[in-house]
Amino acid sequence: MIKKLITGIQKKNAPIVVGLDPTLAMLPSRFMPKGGVSGEEYLGAVGDGIFEFNKAIVDATADLIPAVKPQIAMYEQFGIPGLVAFQKTVDYCHEKGLIVIGDIKRGDIGSTSAAYATAHLGSLEIGGERFAGFDEDFATVNPYLGTDGVKPFVDVCNENDKGIFVLVKTSNPSSGEFQDRQVEGKPLYELVGAMVEKWGESSMDGNYSNVGAVVGATYPEMGKALRQIMPHAYILVPGYGAQGGKAQDLKVFFNEDGLGAIVNSSRGIIAAYKKEPYAEKYGEKGFADAARAAVIDMREDINRYL
Amino acid sequence: MIKKLITGIQKKNAPIVVGLDPTLAMLPSRFMPKGGVSGEEYLGAVGDGIFEFNKAIVDATADLIPAVKPQIAMYEQFGIPGLVAFQKTVDYCHEKGLIVIGDIKRGDIGSTSAAYATAHLGSLEIGGERFAGFDEDFATVNPYLGTDGVKPFVDVCNENDKGIFVLVKTSNPSSGEFQDRQVEGKPLYELVGAMVEKWGESSMDGNYSNVGAVVGATYPEMGKALRQIMPHAYILVPGYGAQGGKAQDLKVFFNEDGLGAIVNSSRGIIAAYKKEPYAEKYGEKGFADAARAAVIDMREDINRYL
Repeated sequence: MIKKLITGIQKKNAPIVVGLDPTLAMLPSRFMPKGGVSGEEYLGAVGDGIFEFNKAIVDATADLIPAVKPQIAMYEQFGIPGLVAFQKTVDYCHEKGLIVIGDIKRGDIGSTSAAYATAHLGSLEIGGERFAGFDEDFATVNPYLGTDGVKPFVDVCNENDKGIFVLVKTSNPSSGEFQDRQVEGKPLYELVGAMVEKWGESSMDGNYSNVGAVVGATYPEMGKALRQIMPHAYILVPGYGAQGGKAQDLKVFFNEDGLGAIVNSSRGIIAAYKKEPYAEKYGEKGFADAARAAVIDMREDINRYL
Repeated sequence: MIKKLITGIQKKNAPIVVGLDPTLAMLPSRFMPKGGVSGEEYLGAVGDGIFEFNKAIVDATADLIPAVKPQIAMYEQFGIPGLVAFQKTVDYCHEKGLIVIGDIKRGDIGSTSAAYATAHLGSLEIGGERFAGFDEDFATVNPYLGTDGVKPFVDVCNENDKGIFVLVKTSNPSSGEFQDRQVEGKPLYELVGAMVEKWGESSMDGNYSNVGAVVGATYPEMGKALRQIMPHAYILVPGYGAQGGKAQDLKVFFNEDGLGAIVNSSRGIIAAYKKEPYAEKYGEKGFADAARAAVIDMREDINRYL
């Protein structure tokens, strides 16, 4: 699957993933339920609105980007109707030829991790039929439980040509509380990074592994060290834009071959119409065109430094 | 909420939680779809079967136990119909007066963690109505992202009188890979444990905090140390029974007041009918009575050592 992602990145000259993390506050009013409905029906209409919003964003940007990254928490908060919107979003992105990175940050032990892997990257055979739960192409995985928690995901990836990105050094301000702690003279995130490289050995797909890593754009120095420790891991880089990560700092996440990283922006793209320079030009009505313009600007901003 | 859990434990004299983690392999054949359906309809029938199985287990054990712990991964693997079964299970357990610990092991950053907290422990106001997603009473939380990832859960707990159990030292064989690493002369899990005690300060509810911890029964020595480090944290103890944790080792997880821990068993209860001494006596037909007998035996086994 990583080979497919790389092909997409090269074809579109865009190491960019758009985060589909809608909140109600960023939904143009036309996507909110119109009244006349209440209770579960209302919540269903909210889910429909979120899906229609995503659809418009995807329609406006699909030719420019290789992949999207829906953050499942933003859907899960609406219960079942939200998760239906998540599922429909994944399916629609596939229809449009996009690779889908499910930002699910799951992780458990043994058979439980295997169940999560099945839910998001695999399928089940029941009564002679095969069923896929959410069917993303990649998923993000939390490593706190160790190999027991990650290996079942790798196994499902190998069976289905899918991939994962393991949380190594996250983009948030307090990520250092545990991740930066010195373990035998090295920070914990380097130890986790070394394990990512090891877990990925069984899942090579061309020059890179289907087992990648998440390293925040907000920590470029650490990204530089991790790039060396995990030569075969693709790095999913959140934190560009809204969280403060800058394009000139992104070069260190890439390898000499110009590959090895894909940068995410969520709010900066899907809510571009709410802030300058896009707000004045596009306004709420032009939210999808604003998203397209923001992707083009992001591509230029990043490629200038690569 | 922890006060309510303690009251339940005391009333039933059972520091026991039953893990509702059904797999198709442990479902008596009467709960499997009968044929004549296919595709999505079939999967819906599987979800219904899982819910009906849970219902029978709950009906047979609710008077003996204070709480249940459904593991969401086992439902998520069946996609939307599985999550509908999860939601119906939570609601049914509430109807029967049980406290529900959602074993979801979520954790993300800032607004994303807040969305997960809303999904499972809170509610949303949209268009003048309030909606709760899954509405458990407690949730398990992964601490790898630090305070940014945990604090939004604590805030939602404080607003809604709910609680969390933070993964500190998990029960699986490879939990030590990262959790046991020495950080400034102490293992990482002790550092996480100290943070659990700190995160819990703002959420005291009687003598204990609504912020508890997960520590595996398979590591009693570490449990003993963590009991001292987190005097106000309730410990959710998985790993008893099927995973190898023994009753005589559980005493260390409790405080002098006889409180402070609640022990989970999943397969050992809900699939009791598949193994001796229950298999011969109850068989598949008596799966619910077998579960009841296994709860009674577990209660006796544990209380003998307290």
